[in-house]
Amino acid sequence: MSTREDGRADDELRPIRITRNWLDHPAGSVLVEFGRTRVLCAASASEGVPRWRKGSGLGWVTAEYAMLPAATNTRSDRESVKGRIGGRTHEISRLIGRSLRAVIDYKALGENTIQLDCDVLQADGGTRTAAITGAYVALADACAKLNVPAALTGSVAAVSVGIIDGVPRLDLPYVEDVRAETDMNVVMTGDGKYVEVQGTAEGVAFDRAELDALLSLAEKGCADLTRLQQEALVRA
Amino acid sequence: MSTREDGRADDELRPIRITRNWLDHPAGSVLVEFGRTRVLCAASASEGVPRWRKGSGLGWVTAEYAMLPAATNTRSDRESVKGRIGGRTHEISRLIGRSLRAVIDYKALGENTIQLDCDVLQADGGTRTAAITGAYVALADACAKLNVPAALTGSVAAVSVGIIDGVPRLDLPYVEDVRAETDMNVVMTGDGKYVEVQGTAEGVAFDRAELDALLSLAEKGCADLTRLQQEALVRA
Amino acid sequence: MSTREDGRADDELRPIRITRNWLDHPAGSVLVEFGRTRVLCAASASEGVPRWRKGSGLGWVTAEYAMLPAATNTRSDRESVKGRIGGRTHEISRLIGRSLRAVIDYKALGENTIQLDCDVLQADGGTRTAAITGAYVALADACAKLNVPAALTGSVAAVSVGIIDGVPRLDLPYVEDVRAETDMNVVMTGDGKYVEVQGTAEGVAFDRAELDALLSLAEKGCADLTRLQQEALVRA
Amino acid sequence: MSTREDGRADDELRPIRITRNWLDHPAGSVLVEFGRTRVLCAASASEGVPRWRKGSGLGWVTAEYAMLPAATNTRSDRESVKGRIGGRTHEISRLIGRSLRAVIDYKALGENTIQLDCDVLQADGGTRTAAITGAYVALADACAKLNVPAALTGSVAAVSVGIIDGVPRLDLPYVEDVRAETDMNVVMTGDGKYVEVQGTAEGVAFDRAELDALLSLAEKGCADLTRLQQEALVRA
Amino acid sequence: MSTREDGRADDELRPIRITRNWLDHPAGSVLVEFGRTRVLCAASASEGVPRWRKGSGLGWVTAEYAMLPAATNTRSDRESVKGRIGGRTHEISRLIGRSLRAVIDYKALGENTIQLDCDVLQADGGTRTAAITGAYVALADACAKLNVPAALTGSVAAVSVGIIDGVPRLDLPYVEDVRAETDMNVVMTGDGKYVEVQGTAEGVAFDRAELDALLSLAEKGCADLTRLQQEALVRA
Amino acid sequence: MSTREDGRADDELRPIRITRNWLDHPAGSVLVEFGRTRVLCAASASEGVPRWRKGSGLGWVTAEYAMLPAATNTRSDRESVKGRIGGRTHEISRLIGRSLRAVIDYKALGENTIQLDCDVLQADGGTRTAAITGAYVALADACAKLNVPAALTGSVAAVSVGIIDGVPRLDLPYVEDVRAETDMNVVMTGDGKYVEVQGTAEGVAFDRAELDALLSLAEKGCADLTRLQQEALVRA
Repeated sequence: MSTREDGRADDELRPIRITRNWLDHPAGSVLVEFGRTRVLCAASASEGVPRWRKGSGLGWVTAEYAMLPAATNTRSDRESVKGRIGGRTHEISRLIGRSLRAVIDYKALGENTIQLDCDVLQADGGTRTAAITGAYVALADACAKLNVPAALTGSVAAVSVGIIDGVPRLDLPYVEDVRAETDMNVVMTGDGKYVEVQGTAEGVAFDRAELDALLSLAEKGCADLTRLQQEALVRA
Repeated sequence: MSTREDGRADDELRPIRITRNWLDHPAGSVLVEFGRTRVLCAASASEGVPRWRKGSGLGWVTAEYAMLPAATNTRSDRESVKGRIGGRTHEISRLIGRSLRAVIDYKALGENTIQLDCDVLQADGGTRTAAITGAYVALADACAKLNVPAALTGSVAAVSVGIIDGVPRLDLPYVEDVRAETDMNVVMTGDGKYVEVQGTAEGVAFDRAELDALLSLAEKGCADLTRLQQEALVRA
Repeated sequence: MSTREDGRADDELRPIRITRNWLDHPAGSVLVEFGRTRVLCAASASEGVPRWRKGSGLGWVTAEYAMLPAATNTRSDRESVKGRIGGRTHEISRLIGRSLRAVIDYKALGENTIQLDCDVLQADGGTRTAAITGAYVALADACAKLNVPAALTGSVAAVSVGIIDGVPRLDLPYVEDVRAETDMNVVMTGDGKYVEVQGTAEGVAFDRAELDALLSLAEKGCADLTRLQQEALVRA
Repeated sequence: MSTREDGRADDELRPIRITRNWLDHPAGSVLVEFGRTRVLCAASASEGVPRWRKGSGLGWVTAEYAMLPAATNTRSDRESVKGRIGGRTHEISRLIGRSLRAVIDYKALGENTIQLDCDVLQADGGTRTAAITGAYVALADACAKLNVPAALTGSVAAVSVGIIDGVPRLDLPYVEDVRAETDMNVVMTGDGKYVEVQGTAEGVAFDRAELDALLSLAEKGCADLTRLQQEALVRA
Repeated sequence: MSTREDGRADDELRPIRITRNWLDHPAGSVLVEFGRTRVLCAASASEGVPRWRKGSGLGWVTAEYAMLPAATNTRSDRESVKGRIGGRTHEISRLIGRSLRAVIDYKALGENTIQLDCDVLQADGGTRTAAITGAYVALADACAKLNVPAALTGSVAAVSVGIIDGVPRLDLPYVEDVRAETDMNVVMTGDGKYVEVQGTAEGVAFDRAELDALLSLAEKGCADLTRLQQEALVRA
Repeated sequence: MSTREDGRADDELRPIRITRNWLDHPAGSVLVEFGRTRVLCAASASEGVPRWRKGSGLGWVTAEYAMLPAATNTRSDRESVKGRIGGRTHEISRLIGRSLRAVIDYKALGENTIQLDCDVLQADGGTRTAAITGAYVALADACAKLNVPAALTGSVAAVSVGIIDGVPRLDLPYVEDVRAETDMNVVMTGDGKYVEVQGTAEGVAFDRAELDALLSLAEKGCADLTRLQQEALVRA
């Protein structure tokens, strides 16, 4: 019997919604929802690559993550107004970029750049994993639109897991996230391999058995998300 | 017979949609749509006022406007990444703030601050006028939630007008905006008075008669928007 | 009988002084004075245009406005020290640029850039309108010096108007500006057409009749300024 | 038989040197060397804590990581000159801070702050793991000097592991790091628990077996480093 | 017989003009001219001192130097637009501040701050020495206005000297400055003592005899400037 | 009989240590120590010159100075974190660059750039003079490595001198520096000529006799340092 506030089983995802083509301008765009977490993912394509890559025949994929000021419980200041990007933002932008690049064949993409913008409209935990999961779908749409489907070598999804009161749980909302003793974000390919594992002890260090349990839970969650991504991509 | 690309009469607004409570966290929030222009307006309330106003017994209302990178035809760089806010962004943020403050009774608000965030999710002309129109509704919801309905002394709405091929037109989408000889943004109260008039000759200076025609057209548009705002606010 | 502190009629300008060639280096330079408001306007010419305009055969005119720290009643901090330019500065710089570009024939200018710098040495209200009025004269001198008089298609001048205690008044000094219920800046060409109209309600919204009265007053003021500009330009 | 360029066994650390009290001013300071990687770690103590923590009776530990321009193969620009801190720097600073905080008892520390500065004098792979390993020793010295030995609840060390040509290896120098298919940084306590696990696929996603092998290798490396830290701390 | 382009003797200053009360707002203000070099010096007084000096009973004097964009031969970019202050500006601001503080009795000034702003309106060599010379007069006026004449313990003036074609010369204009083999700025008190000596070899190192000749020349120039400052201060 | 805290004669340098090749990557690198002051000087060579010098056939030498946060008595904040470089840092970087350029033959260097990085690891007075003295040795090594020994036209060294309790002293440590009435930094070539003289009265202006005494003392110190540099450069 679950003791989670929202009634979910410990290994159950929140309700996931993937809405494609939410915007008119970019090559791909997705509004992805993990429960109340809502992230707008846009994949903008442009010809050419950054200077350091010119003439290589290879493409490039990069990502930027940001949060609207009113996305959080208490309003947070704009990074544009502060004049500098915080460490957390940098860290997540880099994570999203690396994760998506793991399933890109640069050669098949050709000298084109796809810029992923993941803007959190509403935050309730798991924004980075929702962003990666949604960005993959936007990226797939962009590759299709660019007529380079072979540029995608696989799919990628991400989920958070954590230990709350000694129990491993999948896909943490904010209320669970702040109470977690250990917090892990796992990015996996559609065929069950790891792209990123980022586990952090919050307060108490964790042992190998706990680590193993979290990895298994994440595998389950990523498999579920992979299925939901595929379903979204076959919808008209 | 209209010659507008989208079939509208010259004095007709685009389809307007005002969706209240689009976000869970802020005191008021509205997704406002003027055709394909889509702006998310959040009104976040907090106790206290800026330092220069402390102890005055008066409240404060301020606004920030921004655009998501993928909102425009061609992706635009983030101001947080550039490390500085552009002149256009500053200008529009200030306009929105002044417009909303025109209908605020600071004393009734008490020493509270309402921060309006207007984030353009998709841009197709008229983003600043949509932002003002939507922000008013979010502000009204915030005042209700704060239990200070008397802090609102009236309503405010805004619309763009312009002269295209010699013909004055209401509520310009992007394709008309770039062709306009003269471009004007008008902010009016619900009882038909002016809060802001900003007219700019694009290329050719305009005469008093043209100015008068544009003002009349804007009056009509703002009256229509005022009605739509009131309708939205009475919906459950 | 006037009730203005400085004894002027309601439709009378402050004493205006336009001193050409105040600097040795730039192609044109003017010290313009509207009463105690003193703005140094320099027009620096350089070959070439910004990157986005290269090869077009067209010139460019742009402007920057700034205020010396000791120009105001109470010293204000330098924007260079703060590391960022404020919204007001951005807004006025953009206004000056647009206003001057309204009388420029880019083709006749050729691929040259004229940079207008308007630095307020002393502020007593109306700094932006003095800047535009003076910058036009500096621009005219620069076009003459560059030997492209045809690049100027007309003249441009600007004045502030406002309603104080219900009475419309021309060319507001600081003491009137802070008391104005409505404040409007109007930029007009020498042949009496509008380039910019920026009216703002300070506290109380204004009606169409008030707007009309202000526009008429501004027309009178701009005509006077146009005459003074022409007189200055024919002086040796 | 090892095939590593420097002749090490796959599970062998580079020569490690921990030189305490390298600086005269800070409460603790360590020059730590992992082979040619050389990081200067300083622990500066100050009374008081950041504003958000005042009056809590709890202390604070934070970290900053940076690299000298000439530390790398090719000189890299200073972040102070660029005017902004890069994402990588932010990310590593945050990692070091979290890692050290994992062994701190804030209550025992009292309302004091210890600031760890980890400056890379020379980089040859593994700078962040060397920084954590050295910073722990500097922190221990600082706690002793502050007379709050109980503020330390354990020790912490870190090491990098990676898969090169299919073989898991410990403590990668730069030449191995750039060739690694998978790269993982692991931070562990002295009693063998995990504080941070950060694994990244470089090009090819990795499977659970590979992940397990890397974790075991890291456990061995961290145990070795823990022993070397203890030896350094007992030296006069 | 002089061979200087402007006909001056080698030990002769350019025409010096010191115009007091050039501005209405600050406590003291001077337009100082060394030939075509024109610097506006303002001394703004305010109650209180910087945080680190509060409660000491001592005052503070500080300075900022800047150049208008059109002050130089070729327009230079604004530091506010570039978002950072250059090294040269910093260096000169610090020099002016130190120089003026050399003649201030902080105790007599009381807990007041005088901020000196030296803005170069036109540059033709020697802007920093003109700034110091003019700032002293503005400072004297400010002390008088604040009714703390005893805060001034003496006067201070500055001049540039240099060796051109082997000949030591006083008060270099731009054309001489760029050709100087050695360039020295000297700040002296009214009673002939040194406050600052800054000599720089441009290309060729200089010997002790040359250094001595330059110091003697500077003494003569500073004595002349001291006399001109006193004359200016006794004018009504 | 000396009264200096560290027992030195008034005209005696602190123990000087010059350790070459302290780093593996840059063309030249030196750890220079003046007593407890410790500066790491790196000379990084790269092909090409800044844009404004391209095609001239001439090389370029430039310098950056910085201080580690824990180098000082009380930890100082990082300039990268503050987002701006302070005036003192700018000033010293410029001084080091000018000093080293005084002994460079740009033509012999060819279109190459040598970037000097002087990072203060520990500060105890005289960091800028130690930096110049060490940077020269690193530069010499870099020129040798680049195979352009003729690019060096001489040597350069620097020392601080000051008057403490009326007595001129050489090479001031921090405790003397803060008490000095007058403080001077002198940069000289190996053949006894002046490159830079920067003297500052701290509190009390100084007379010509004092200035002369300080210059003589500096000559002695620079001669000693020149000898130590040469000795270091002949060591294997």
